[in-house]
Amino acid sequence: MLTLYYAPHSCSLASHIALIDAGAEYRLERIDFAANQQRSPAYLAINPKARVPALATPRGILTETPAMLAFIAQSFPAAGLAPLADPFAFAELQAFNSYVCSTLHVAHAHRMRGSRWSDDPEAWESMRRKVPQSVGAAFDLIEHGMLKGPWVMGGLYSVADAYLFTVAQWLEADGVEPDRLPKIVDHRARMLERPAVRRAIDEELTD
Amino acid sequence: MLTLYYAPHSCSLASHIALIDAGAEYRLERIDFAANQQRSPAYLAINPKARVPALATPRGILTETPAMLAFIAQSFPAAGLAPLADPFAFAELQAFNSYVCSTLHVAHAHRMRGSRWSDDPEAWESMRRKVPQSVGAAFDLIEHGMLKGPWVMGGLYSVADAYLFTVAQWLEADGVEPDRLPKIVDHRARMLERPAVRRAIDEELTD
Repeated sequence: MLTLYYAPHSCSLASHIALIDAGAEYRLERIDFAANQQRSPAYLAINPKARVPALATPRGILTETPAMLAFIAQSFPAAGLAPLADPFAFAELQAFNSYVCSTLHVAHAHRMRGSRWSDDPEAWESMRRKVPQSVGAAFDLIEHGMLKGPWVMGGLYSVADAYLFTVAQWLEADGVEPDRLPKIVDHRARMLERPAVRRAIDEELTD
Repeated sequence: MLTLYYAPHSCSLASHIALIDAGAEYRLERIDFAANQQRSPAYLAINPKARVPALATPRGILTETPAMLAFIAQSFPAAGLAPLADPFAFAELQAFNSYVCSTLHVAHAHRMRGSRWSDDPEAWESMRRKVPQSVGAAFDLIEHGMLKGPWVMGGLYSVADAYLFTVAQWLEADGVEPDRLPKIVDHRARMLERPAVRRAIDEELTD
């Protein structure tokens, strides 16, 4: 059994969708950010980074969305969630996930988490003002190249689609005009029609 | 043949070391950051992100250090640079690389690249002041858990060691006191004794 530690509206949704797509047996553990539960001694023993997601497996804990998504795809190969037999195509998938994690998500985090990188509230405000531009630039690169269509990897639906859908939830709140991103908005709509995506969202809202 | 687009003192060193460790045939293309070559039309055609590293392969271009490191390990399996047959161990390796990329390197980038996230020079200065703390906290997590010893993954030397060595080059300039990180400093010294590491550094300095 796998246990996914998650928080609603966070990037943990990507791994949640992937677990359902994979046909995995899993249970959910909600981490209450409002109560600062991610910094509780009990959770720090699971993930010393004080973040979600984390995935408890029979072998130990895994963290970092790109690593977890590859792990889920590799652990449930019958689900076909990554081009596992083709190192180049797998690397393209991983490059997409790494870009979302280290550039797009990082740009997004400057809206609410400026205290990670500065102790000055005026600097936080300055960072917040740039989020529409920095997050928008990352989505532009995806729109105009990385998203091959209809899925991220082209014809193959993969764990990268769960990740793109997850971060595309944040577009409007980050001040990025969706009209300039028609492929991403269409992808988001098609993802919302998938039962696995609906189930993941329902589980997080009713958990 | 593979072509690595790199810049000295950047994170591209990790992929460079991994290519040598793998026994790959490769050639180097230096991107001159001082001349802003990463924003030249010729380079943007290779990597629209205007960053290094990028790896030109017979199948196309790859970017993002974690994806490139996994690709090199998977393309040269005889070199044993990743636990390829064990999805959990491979995920642990990937989680390490993802953390270095999306947390440690990002914290480091706030010293010189604040303009990515703010347009205000005072905010850049404020970010710079926090780098010793934010980069130091990331190295602390590696020192006190993620670095199993003697190598990142324990007994297995892997591409993660090339990545840790690369970012550990930046400790002093980032204002992190090396004395608090004895395992990482020892790792750095042992890496410097490896012929592949010396060759990579020499090639970048004399290219």
